[in-house]
Amino acid sequence: MAAGPAFADAGKKPAGEEISHFLLGNGMEVVVIPDHRAPIVTHMVWYKVGSADEPPGKSGIAHFFEHLMFKGTEKHKAGEFGAKIAEIGGSENAFTSDDFTAYFQTVSPDALGTMMDYEADRMRNLILTDAVIGPERDVVLEERRSRIETSPDALLAEEIDATLYQNHPYRIPVIGWMHEMEKLNRADAVAFYDRYYAPNNAILVVAGDVDANTVRTLAEATYGKVARGPDLPPRLRPQEPEQNTARTVTLSDPRVTTPSFSKSWLAPSYNTAEPGEGEALDLLSEILGGGVRSRIYQALVVKAGIASTAGAYYDGTKLDTGSFVVYGAPRGDAKLEEVQAAIDAEIAAVVKDGVTEEELEAAKNRFLRSMIFAQDSQSSMANIYGTALATGGTVDDILGWPDRIRKVTSADLVKAAAKYLRSSGSVTGYLLPAEPVQN
Amino acid sequence: MAAGPAFADAGKKPAGEEISHFLLGNGMEVVVIPDHRAPIVTHMVWYKVGSADEPPGKSGIAHFFEHLMFKGTEKHKAGEFGAKIAEIGGSENAFTSDDFTAYFQTVSPDALGTMMDYEADRMRNLILTDAVIGPERDVVLEERRSRIETSPDALLAEEIDATLYQNHPYRIPVIGWMHEMEKLNRADAVAFYDRYYAPNNAILVVAGDVDANTVRTLAEATYGKVARGPDLPPRLRPQEPEQNTARTVTLSDPRVTTPSFSKSWLAPSYNTAEPGEGEALDLLSEILGGGVRSRIYQALVVKAGIASTAGAYYDGTKLDTGSFVVYGAPRGDAKLEEVQAAIDAEIAAVVKDGVTEEELEAAKNRFLRSMIFAQDSQSSMANIYGTALATGGTVDDILGWPDRIRKVTSADLVKAAAKYLRSSGSVTGYLLPAEPVQN
Repeated sequence: MAAGPAFADAGKKPAGEEISHFLLGNGMEVVVIPDHRAPIVTHMVWYKVGSADEPPGKSGIAHFFEHLMFKGTEKHKAGEFGAKIAEIGGSENAFTSDDFTAYFQTVSPDALGTMMDYEADRMRNLILTDAVIGPERDVVLEERRSRIETSPDALLAEEIDATLYQNHPYRIPVIGWMHEMEKLNRADAVAFYDRYYAPNNAILVVAGDVDANTVRTLAEATYGKVARGPDLPPRLRPQEPEQNTARTVTLSDPRVTTPSFSKSWLAPSYNTAEPGEGEALDLLSEILGGGVRSRIYQALVVKAGIASTAGAYYDGTKLDTGSFVVYGAPRGDAKLEEVQAAIDAEIAAVVKDGVTEEELEAAKNRFLRSMIFAQDSQSSMANIYGTALATGGTVDDILGWPDRIRKVTSADLVKAAAKYLRSSGSVTGYLLPAEPVQN
Repeated sequence: MAAGPAFADAGKKPAGEEISHFLLGNGMEVVVIPDHRAPIVTHMVWYKVGSADEPPGKSGIAHFFEHLMFKGTEKHKAGEFGAKIAEIGGSENAFTSDDFTAYFQTVSPDALGTMMDYEADRMRNLILTDAVIGPERDVVLEERRSRIETSPDALLAEEIDATLYQNHPYRIPVIGWMHEMEKLNRADAVAFYDRYYAPNNAILVVAGDVDANTVRTLAEATYGKVARGPDLPPRLRPQEPEQNTARTVTLSDPRVTTPSFSKSWLAPSYNTAEPGEGEALDLLSEILGGGVRSRIYQALVVKAGIASTAGAYYDGTKLDTGSFVVYGAPRGDAKLEEVQAAIDAEIAAVVKDGVTEEELEAAKNRFLRSMIFAQDSQSSMANIYGTALATGGTVDDILGWPDRIRKVTSADLVKAAAKYLRSSGSVTGYLLPAEPVQN
């Protein structure tokens, strides 16, 4: 299910028009979100494949393949799709996560059919020669070098994930490990494409100034012509064992100027949680550390003045087990340990005494309002539906989310905090400004 | 390659008889180690499959399958093989590691053909029904409960491995994760058996009072009749990324009475090391912490009296990256931190000043002597050859090991210590006698 604060009473559009959800004959899932306030449309295709679905040893292939989707087909040579979008004043992008890969364009409604035509074409007809693969592999390798290898934060974040997840592929970075990316080849790309890029593994999300019938007609005429791919088995990735230890991961680097820490716990995602737990974890993160009004921020940054930054967040938009994180950095003469202890104390206080009705109502209202704001953004709505459907959620899950948020009690937050924020399953990451110490 | 101190001038038997190494027609590898001092023979079959070859999510299947090999075939019902061995006064056992699974019997030479007959039969003809699988799965689950779940040491060791190896399947326990073992079923067992249990994926090692021709004749008449299995691809498991962090793993448990720690680094195995590095790491571990004469033991236990135990070891007998470990526990009023610091100081001293010629010669002599002793043990010799051949080594590697050990210099040890024993790639495990702390 999509990131908490953005679900809103999504099915109830101001115009009264309902969200449509149907399948094409070849199994492609379609969601249409009418929004007639402006003559634009957001067209997205979500593939139910991400880095956590990669074969062992082939890390990075999902993201690498996202790049390859911008190469040419027999019908449209490389760059032609992008040039077309630019020509008509549209925009486009793509992204890869652990659980999905998505491609989108924002254009005027009369160009929707053209977008579908191009997108359906590259779903199956990419020309994947070594001449295409080699240079693009260099591009993603350079992307890793510039974004990860030169960033102590990013390197630490990777090893925190690799320590938090002992078995699940979420431990592997989405961009891939360098030594495996270097070996990705044409055979890997073709196998990945043939397996995962097919209408019966894709979700079409169209938000904007169109109606469902038009979308259905256009989609059947484009995507509907693409042959089904293989029937894929359920996405059963290796799950986490019971964890019994408290772990730390420390990166010391001369490029770091101020120390900081984060503490992560495995926590169920909306998809794996018991009913109501995802909502409770979302509200817990909001009240504990979701902004400047949160307990952690008020206590550490505003009142005690010991932290320059501090907060909490919950990543519940995963197909499998998600995570709950608190973080902070000391200010002035304060020590990192003080910041950690103060955050631990805030968690302990919630476990002991719960939260007040006022805090809970205020947090719920912030969530519900942010969902209403999300309806103002076509691309936000498209993202919410795409993310939810690609990570095990349903349209009804999204529509019912506001009601489920309203039902969460302080006792639910206490229970979630006590159950999941235990030291014996935590990973604390430290980013320190020292030279690496030998031995 | 097999554990360091046991290689000896293995090819040069006292009787002058050479070790034989050949293939059967179906691809089964055979090693014969003549040893005529007593009328016994050790018969081993090594399968080149271990827990690190398991499909993702199927942890424990290799070890589970070792259990299933003691079930029945059409020709010999369950228990018959064991009863036969007992009847003739022999003994038998089996073991599973990350890289191999081995079965062995020690019997009188006239029973060798019978052993081969039984062993060849169960290589392909096991009856794997649900009625066989279910109860045996309960047995391995109980084995995990009794050996691991009730042992803080064992639970900590598992999570240290899961933290040290971020990508390689060596992070997964050989016995398996409980939640995955519970789901192992007949289809998993049959797929594993069909893929890996075949003459062309096996090594027959016979040590004892036999000659190579007899072994060859008996082997062709038994194993030689077993059809080849699939041609397996090279054993390419996901390898480790570059590691940039120092990590800790802490288990606090009321059952622990005294604190202790270990510090592990990834280190190349004999199979993955640059020439001479495995030998240098073996000698480094021996001089640093290989027994009561070692630097660490002398400094911490004997002289300073701050440790009740302390030492070092190197696990280089792996197909892929191995590990180097130091460990210790405080004595009396000494703190764990003192023990750690004292061991770090011993490593730093080797990096700074190397080791003396006397230390190096003494360590080499201990290794060379232990290899000679190994020749006195038929099963040790069989184990050395089986382990080496199942983890990427050759007979020549074993025969040449004493010479390579003799060539190692102090400079080689310094280089290996400086290269591999770095904090930024280490994992320190703490076993502490406290109650688990919340938050």
